[in-house]
Amino acid sequence: MAAAEIRQQEDVLQYVRSLGQRARKASRGLPALPAEARALALRQIAVRLDALHGEIIEANEQDLKRAREREIAKPLLDRLMLDDAGVNRMIEGLRQVGDLPDPVGRISEVSRRPSGIRVGRMQVPLGVIAIIYESRPNVTVDAASLCFKSGNACILRGGSEAVMSNRTIARAIALGLEDADVNPDAVLLVETTDREAVSMLARLDEFVDVLVPRGGKSLIERISRDATVPVIKHLDGVCHVYIAADAEPKMAIEIAVNSKIEKLAVCNAIETLLVDAEASSVLPMIADALQAHGIELVGCERSRAQCKGMGEATEADWYEEYLGPKLAVRVVDDMSAAIDHIHAYGSAHTDAIVTKSYVKANEFLARVDSATVMVNASTQFADGFEFGLGAEIGISTDKLHARGPVGLDGLTSSKFIVLGDGQIRHR
Amino acid sequence: MAAAEIRQQEDVLQYVRSLGQRARKASRGLPALPAEARALALRQIAVRLDALHGEIIEANEQDLKRAREREIAKPLLDRLMLDDAGVNRMIEGLRQVGDLPDPVGRISEVSRRPSGIRVGRMQVPLGVIAIIYESRPNVTVDAASLCFKSGNACILRGGSEAVMSNRTIARAIALGLEDADVNPDAVLLVETTDREAVSMLARLDEFVDVLVPRGGKSLIERISRDATVPVIKHLDGVCHVYIAADAEPKMAIEIAVNSKIEKLAVCNAIETLLVDAEASSVLPMIADALQAHGIELVGCERSRAQCKGMGEATEADWYEEYLGPKLAVRVVDDMSAAIDHIHAYGSAHTDAIVTKSYVKANEFLARVDSATVMVNASTQFADGFEFGLGAEIGISTDKLHARGPVGLDGLTSSKFIVLGDGQIRHR
Repeated sequence: MAAAEIRQQEDVLQYVRSLGQRARKASRGLPALPAEARALALRQIAVRLDALHGEIIEANEQDLKRAREREIAKPLLDRLMLDDAGVNRMIEGLRQVGDLPDPVGRISEVSRRPSGIRVGRMQVPLGVIAIIYESRPNVTVDAASLCFKSGNACILRGGSEAVMSNRTIARAIALGLEDADVNPDAVLLVETTDREAVSMLARLDEFVDVLVPRGGKSLIERISRDATVPVIKHLDGVCHVYIAADAEPKMAIEIAVNSKIEKLAVCNAIETLLVDAEASSVLPMIADALQAHGIELVGCERSRAQCKGMGEATEADWYEEYLGPKLAVRVVDDMSAAIDHIHAYGSAHTDAIVTKSYVKANEFLARVDSATVMVNASTQFADGFEFGLGAEIGISTDKLHARGPVGLDGLTSSKFIVLGDGQIRHR
Repeated sequence: MAAAEIRQQEDVLQYVRSLGQRARKASRGLPALPAEARALALRQIAVRLDALHGEIIEANEQDLKRAREREIAKPLLDRLMLDDAGVNRMIEGLRQVGDLPDPVGRISEVSRRPSGIRVGRMQVPLGVIAIIYESRPNVTVDAASLCFKSGNACILRGGSEAVMSNRTIARAIALGLEDADVNPDAVLLVETTDREAVSMLARLDEFVDVLVPRGGKSLIERISRDATVPVIKHLDGVCHVYIAADAEPKMAIEIAVNSKIEKLAVCNAIETLLVDAEASSVLPMIADALQAHGIELVGCERSRAQCKGMGEATEADWYEEYLGPKLAVRVVDDMSAAIDHIHAYGSAHTDAIVTKSYVKANEFLARVDSATVMVNASTQFADGFEFGLGAEIGISTDKLHARGPVGLDGLTSSKFIVLGDGQIRHR
């Protein structure tokens, strides 16, 4: 490495560390903040975003202009763009998060122990959360509001394409926090576009308690590999619907079709349909309905024997997250075979059974080891809003800590509290 | 590396992988096991341990003999030794874990959403837990019973000194599981003493869901550094008692003394005492009492001005986990200064305040960012038994997932369940 490059890296490291220090310091003041002060601060941020509406649009136009000059692909431009309606949606989302029940300081499970002490748990913020995301500038507001509402300080690192938009939004957030007499370091934006800053954040254990990468699988894998800070992450969404032998045909068709087509490029869309060998009479109807929606089907030998126009599925198809108009289909001998398939090839995200049987429903719920397990419902319901969490920072496929859609509770931790009257211990 | 060495490492890797595969397979059958079957299996293991009582003692004598030949230090020999009473305590502990409420399958927070689906959470096992521990053979039974009771399969790797004892104990466990018609692979012992096996386990993401290292700080640091599997760990116990300005003197003395001396070499013993400047009249009395118990004191200038025979504390002392008859003492200006000290130097394990003030108690509980925060009680209470968890696998100083004493609940995860009647989603 050249000397200038080393110097530059040292500068970036020093900058990222200073952000960490400031965020940590700000985070110390947040847990004791009254719920009303937290809600007020979010309202003030909404006011400031509204006041800077025009400037945000202008900044976004600059980002778009630069992106177009660099001939950036259309989908990325779409994600980058903020129009008037987009800014208003951002503000509306912020107000909604502000109105959610405050999760901080909730005390539960208090019991008196034989020694006389009372022991309970208190819901507390995690501390400092770093969020790494891509080009959507609205994530700056979403992430900041969820972290702040749950009592955390946050360090936000958005995509370099959105740097002007994000700076303007971050300015509105800082002003809103100041209006409410809160340390504005509670929400910090990483202003350098140097990519090294991301790896540095991911190793800043001293000041960062958890890292939430949001974006494509390759970004998340790269960040997680290097990270020493704990990561809340979501990798794949290889979801399944299993049609049991006794499934009601109409319901089976509706759920299979909706789980795939309601939205194609989302993590909770199914990628493989499993059909019980005894339910296979329903399969051609499902296949027709899916094909009518333009879905390409590939299947196992038994599936293909029953359906027209179905390609051959290879072993690789069972692992595939198509995120598009393609679905793999497999006939399985029984529910155990379906569960074995889900465990072998799935990503433990969201899996559903369609059945009329109480016993099968209970067994499927107990045995399938996924973040969300459903009976007789479309997998497309698997998100924070539909589950009543109010909002979500993402969907975790990890098992420790938060699993499934991560709302405010997933951004908190719980500590033990002990209330005594002078008790001492004698072993 | 020589060819033979490479071959040997490949053999170890293959062996560890095969253990992982077997444990994963066994784990799939555990979540749907009825609570009574789990309890029965633990009772059968107790019966088998009782039947093999003599063989366990003999195996332990072989371990002790070999350890003595290698001139292993006395404290290690003490930890390694299992006498009749030790075997009986092990069996009694197992029965107690068996009698705890079963945590698996508990459903909570079920609500009906506007879409008509019902959404709730189900408590489920983590899957496969690997436990790495040192020379105490009783940990083999403790860890196996906690993992099994919480519905997990486990892979146990004890210290090489205890290999004969652990093998005999593992045989009793396998026989007990078989007696109860449970796949004996639910509890597997790593039988090789090759140290590489530990690093391999720590990187066996495919088959191991979580790693729990138990032992000295250096062992835990080494394992965590290499691990790609999530780790539940406990590093330091730099605990504090803060005597507030308004503390009742008698209570202040009792809690300060008991928090230090009740047991010295434990993680919940205090290492630094913080005394409010306005409470400093109580400090000489606390110092006298501690010195009468043979505790060496080092302190800040203000502390030393008030106490006889107190050495000078250096900056390093505030970070120190003495785990022995030594305590650092610091006079602080007010509660905020005490909390700043705890956050700057502490290990976020267990910290207590002694105060008569309702406002101070609440503020200390809210602001101190530690796994356990106490008011008017000895820090020595911070363990799973005293907190009513029944037993503990360890005390976590991490913030994600389990924090503080980790009991059965800390060895489980929760997944979302969705109960529908055919609902599909329309965005």
